[in-house]
Amino acid sequence: MSRNRLEAFSDGVIAIIITIMVLELKVPHEATWSALVPVAPVFFSYVLSFFFLGIYWNNHHHLLQVVERVNGRVLWANLHLLFWLSLTPFATGWMGENHFAAYPVALYGVVQLLAAIGYFILARSLLTIHAPDSVLATALGRDFKGKVSLGIYLVAIPLALVKAWLACALYVLVVVMWLAPDRRIEKTIAQ
Amino acid sequence: MSRNRLEAFSDGVIAIIITIMVLELKVPHEATWSALVPVAPVFFSYVLSFFFLGIYWNNHHHLLQVVERVNGRVLWANLHLLFWLSLTPFATGWMGENHFAAYPVALYGVVQLLAAIGYFILARSLLTIHAPDSVLATALGRDFKGKVSLGIYLVAIPLALVKAWLACALYVLVVVMWLAPDRRIEKTIAQ
Amino acid sequence: MSRNRLEAFSDGVIAIIITIMVLELKVPHEATWSALVPVAPVFFSYVLSFFFLGIYWNNHHHLLQVVERVNGRVLWANLHLLFWLSLTPFATGWMGENHFAAYPVALYGVVQLLAAIGYFILARSLLTIHAPDSVLATALGRDFKGKVSLGIYLVAIPLALVKAWLACALYVLVVVMWLAPDRRIEKTIAQ
Amino acid sequence: MSRNRLEAFSDGVIAIIITIMVLELKVPHEATWSALVPVAPVFFSYVLSFFFLGIYWNNHHHLLQVVERVNGRVLWANLHLLFWLSLTPFATGWMGENHFAAYPVALYGVVQLLAAIGYFILARSLLTIHAPDSVLATALGRDFKGKVSLGIYLVAIPLALVKAWLACALYVLVVVMWLAPDRRIEKTIAQ
Repeated sequence: MSRNRLEAFSDGVIAIIITIMVLELKVPHEATWSALVPVAPVFFSYVLSFFFLGIYWNNHHHLLQVVERVNGRVLWANLHLLFWLSLTPFATGWMGENHFAAYPVALYGVVQLLAAIGYFILARSLLTIHAPDSVLATALGRDFKGKVSLGIYLVAIPLALVKAWLACALYVLVVVMWLAPDRRIEKTIAQ
Repeated sequence: MSRNRLEAFSDGVIAIIITIMVLELKVPHEATWSALVPVAPVFFSYVLSFFFLGIYWNNHHHLLQVVERVNGRVLWANLHLLFWLSLTPFATGWMGENHFAAYPVALYGVVQLLAAIGYFILARSLLTIHAPDSVLATALGRDFKGKVSLGIYLVAIPLALVKAWLACALYVLVVVMWLAPDRRIEKTIAQ
Repeated sequence: MSRNRLEAFSDGVIAIIITIMVLELKVPHEATWSALVPVAPVFFSYVLSFFFLGIYWNNHHHLLQVVERVNGRVLWANLHLLFWLSLTPFATGWMGENHFAAYPVALYGVVQLLAAIGYFILARSLLTIHAPDSVLATALGRDFKGKVSLGIYLVAIPLALVKAWLACALYVLVVVMWLAPDRRIEKTIAQ
Repeated sequence: MSRNRLEAFSDGVIAIIITIMVLELKVPHEATWSALVPVAPVFFSYVLSFFFLGIYWNNHHHLLQVVERVNGRVLWANLHLLFWLSLTPFATGWMGENHFAAYPVALYGVVQLLAAIGYFILARSLLTIHAPDSVLATALGRDFKGKVSLGIYLVAIPLALVKAWLACALYVLVVVMWLAPDRRIEKTIAQ
């Protein structure tokens, strides 16, 4: 079974999720700079989510590069990941419209946590149909960054209810940590 | 005539349908957990439809894998299927916003029934241009699950007007029945 | 220069245009059959436009099949076609919401006329970079159906202002005429 | 690492951005020609942005044609370009709804400037992984048009606050300048 349609479908869904978030930026009715002020928090939440989705697309791209085969279970693991990603526009809009208030920031973390678990499950379901010495297995390795991200989300979610801005800082930390592309896979291919 | 664009176009439409449904999850204006309560039924209807569309994408993927050729009639059979799938966001939104009331649940079943018939027609139109001993014909076989699904919808639609929750349970049953990928095709390819 | 991205981009745009039209079907707030009544004209206009866009996708698919090369001018001719197609949701929504009133029906015809001219220009710009005995030139032939369609639109647009339902009947006639896939191209390939 | 998914993802995002802008054309509730008058400025801003995005897609297509390889940094440079392009619907809607007033026209220029810088960075990041005598390097050359465009934006943005229509004329000038496809690349390939 080929991985082409899996890639094409995931690209389509992620591309649409990213672009649909822009619809939350409501066009102001007045033509002054000050009319843009209420849009600012929605804009910042959009920037954050654009990075998150960009990272997922990037890592998904790297991951699928070294995949030799997929099966029905992988298709569902991928759909599961896309499900949580598809909730990002909702969580982003709620967080932006409420100026990064406690509950919306916590929900945003929950959605990111579940998406991260979804990615983890996708990687595991791929590993079960690849040899332990396959390029995929070598490239994924111990998945250090993936595990650290899960830990950060688990800290950030309860923290959001107390100090929302600190939770946001932790989300930014995750983004910064992943901005470097997944060198493991690029290195392994190069070898 | 190649099947590539048929796949790409179907992937695009299904990806957009899935993602557009998220727009029905209206961002609440307040930042409390209780503000999420009215979103809950819309969310559950979204989850159900995500599964339905995921199943169609999955089965469509499996089906096209074993297709050797397509013709103009197949293109239209495919568009016919996509038409009914494209009504899913409307039926989903109506059902979710009205807390799974009788008529919306019945309409949801009608849309799913028509989509199932559309898939059936697509499979038949493919069979007419493949040999009886082709991989496609062997893989499709008697299409047991497809026929059972049609039967369940025919029961669920009138039932929805009497006991809407029972009809919903039947829809979930269809989802569970299909969650296992279409092993027929995977097995046939493996042989 | 390859035609792959031209196909992929056109597929994407047409898929999104089709799916975005569904957003015009506003979910009713009440859960009765009668609540669906105001949606009916919007639904019929959606069905008509789904057919139109399906025909364009289908013919575009057939046309590109026999294309050997594209150039920058072809890319722009294709974008020009997509521009007029992208106005279909607006024209469809206006026509549906106003129950097929005179001006909206006329505007719908204008958009379809301009899209048909766009398709005509795309076909011509492809012919200029293919030999007169190429498969493309043979397949397109005298383009009888294309010219008849242009004629019907030119009659239907002024007619819409007098008898809107007659203009609608003419639009349906165009759809019926094109529903048969472009046999010219299939036949030419077969030879 | 292959460039296929980079192309597919970019095509998807640009296709969705173009089509989402059509949603800003609000369907009028009345069925008269005069009801279309308030839509006119939104329509003109849509036409302008359709051209801008069409040019980006076209040049992106040409650019990727001569790319031999991509890396993680290129993926991010591409996402950076897509980010600014994704703000086009917002800037377009604000400009159209406010009848090309000073601040919206200036913001539109800022978004176009940042997108142009994004394209410039993408081209540079591709050059760093291609030989100085590669087709890509030869084709890009001194990038005269790219630099002139940046200059025009830098003039147009402050000008918008004084004479908005003059800034709009400059935007149209950029469009006209780019409408000719990037002959450099076509010529270089031909050689």
